[in-house]
Amino acid sequence: MQAEPSDKPESCVVIAGVGLIGGSIAAAIRARSPQTRVLGLGRSRQRLESAQQAGLLDDILLDEDAASLPSGALAVICLPVDRIADTTRRLARRSPDDVLFTDAGSVKSLICRDVSSDPCAAARFVGAHPIAGGEKTGCEHATADLFQGRCCIVTPDRSPADRLDRVCRFWQHLGCRVTTMTPEEHDRIVAAISHLPHILSAITALCQQPTDLEFAGSGFRDTTRIAAGDPQLWLPILQGNADHVLRVVRRAQQRLASLAEALQQGDADTLSQLLTEAAAIRRGIERD
Amino acid sequence: MQAEPSDKPESCVVIAGVGLIGGSIAAAIRARSPQTRVLGLGRSRQRLESAQQAGLLDDILLDEDAASLPSGALAVICLPVDRIADTTRRLARRSPDDVLFTDAGSVKSLICRDVSSDPCAAARFVGAHPIAGGEKTGCEHATADLFQGRCCIVTPDRSPADRLDRVCRFWQHLGCRVTTMTPEEHDRIVAAISHLPHILSAITALCQQPTDLEFAGSGFRDTTRIAAGDPQLWLPILQGNADHVLRVVRRAQQRLASLAEALQQGDADTLSQLLTEAAAIRRGIERD
Repeated sequence: MQAEPSDKPESCVVIAGVGLIGGSIAAAIRARSPQTRVLGLGRSRQRLESAQQAGLLDDILLDEDAASLPSGALAVICLPVDRIADTTRRLARRSPDDVLFTDAGSVKSLICRDVSSDPCAAARFVGAHPIAGGEKTGCEHATADLFQGRCCIVTPDRSPADRLDRVCRFWQHLGCRVTTMTPEEHDRIVAAISHLPHILSAITALCQQPTDLEFAGSGFRDTTRIAAGDPQLWLPILQGNADHVLRVVRRAQQRLASLAEALQQGDADTLSQLLTEAAAIRRGIERD
Repeated sequence: MQAEPSDKPESCVVIAGVGLIGGSIAAAIRARSPQTRVLGLGRSRQRLESAQQAGLLDDILLDEDAASLPSGALAVICLPVDRIADTTRRLARRSPDDVLFTDAGSVKSLICRDVSSDPCAAARFVGAHPIAGGEKTGCEHATADLFQGRCCIVTPDRSPADRLDRVCRFWQHLGCRVTTMTPEEHDRIVAAISHLPHILSAITALCQQPTDLEFAGSGFRDTTRIAAGDPQLWLPILQGNADHVLRVVRRAQQRLASLAEALQQGDADTLSQLLTEAAAIRRGIERD
């Protein structure tokens, strides 16, 4: 399902967690609807103030002050995946009923299930995952076009249609192509297309002798770029999607074993077939 | 060992195989020493003529004419790795003794051993591997700066010091950082830093459902870019370095099994350790 393009921007957006993603959301809102009030919420006054000084935020809310969020606001939770559900529930409990929540987490089933278990938060949360980011962290790397043309998967759970619609419009307004699906379907897809690449990228790095790294070419650089990503962000992602990730890792192990067997046996036909199939799949997304 | 910067460019360079690498060598020579005569040698008159029309070549030599190469020329064999040794030996037999040969193949032991077995070619070949390239093929993608700042490994075998020196200077002149080592050492290093990334990139692509590719983000794009490379170039590379490649694939299988085990057991410490180690290795080459 594709939502319709937005014409009416949000009046107030609260961003919980102003890092690369949260900061880029703020920057995209600034660029596209300067009339929207953007508040940053977090635990570090210093980091929030520096985002405010960079012009990303109109005001800051310190998490410890346990303030209510403004009536009618859309709150976007941009925290590591293991802190999203907790934070959503906590903020929902202390905010007016008309505050709506969405997130930017790379895992959805666990988060949606957890939020749904809280009657106060359940119908006010519409999970989302904008497939954008980078190996760099922190709002100093934020850019207004991070979401431009990127896919955002929205995962309706128990939310009424008007709230789902509002969240879809919000992500579209930032430049995303929005698709909706169940949290489960989302997790199956990203296990293969996002979490497996991270794992195999890390494995490629782990197989190197540090003294040989001076011979790295662009192939090594590109395939391992994401392995430099923050382990503290990736650990809860892999753990939060462990079943689907394990399933696709098993598939990768089988494929790798077939390739090794063919190489050992000098079986050129099988090797050629594997390389040709891989090249065809990759060329299918040519847009670089 | 690092050779000294060159000051005297070659007077005549013959490029056998004018594809991405051969074409980029021609372009780099054009940009850096326009006085050097550049000849293209190949099997397809049409492709050579199109490279000549693009201004990359002064003249063309059709392989089937079995012409002698010009006295004093440096011949650079830029063919798929399974055709380098044969071609070098054939050209050496029909050329004056003062024609020197080098190559740009990604595998060295097999090629150097094969060339050394021919008394006519042995002392006139100095193997090389400029670690540069791309998933695109054909001289229409050639660029003069493909080698700028890239590493080129030169593998002296039986060649006298003055010939080794000349070949090192040639690659430096194109912009490469030149390092010398044995063919065996070269093959061990590139198995890990170049051939394994290609294999794991292909495995990442092979684990996707084609219908899910629309959700690919930049992580998937980057990690699988090299999987789109020409299977007909990569098959002989993997087969020509099978022992070293198998050794590093086994290492990758063990690391992947450890990671899968940790994920299944919910062993956050081991998972975190693997991701942290991988990130540290990758960050060690930051230059992007």
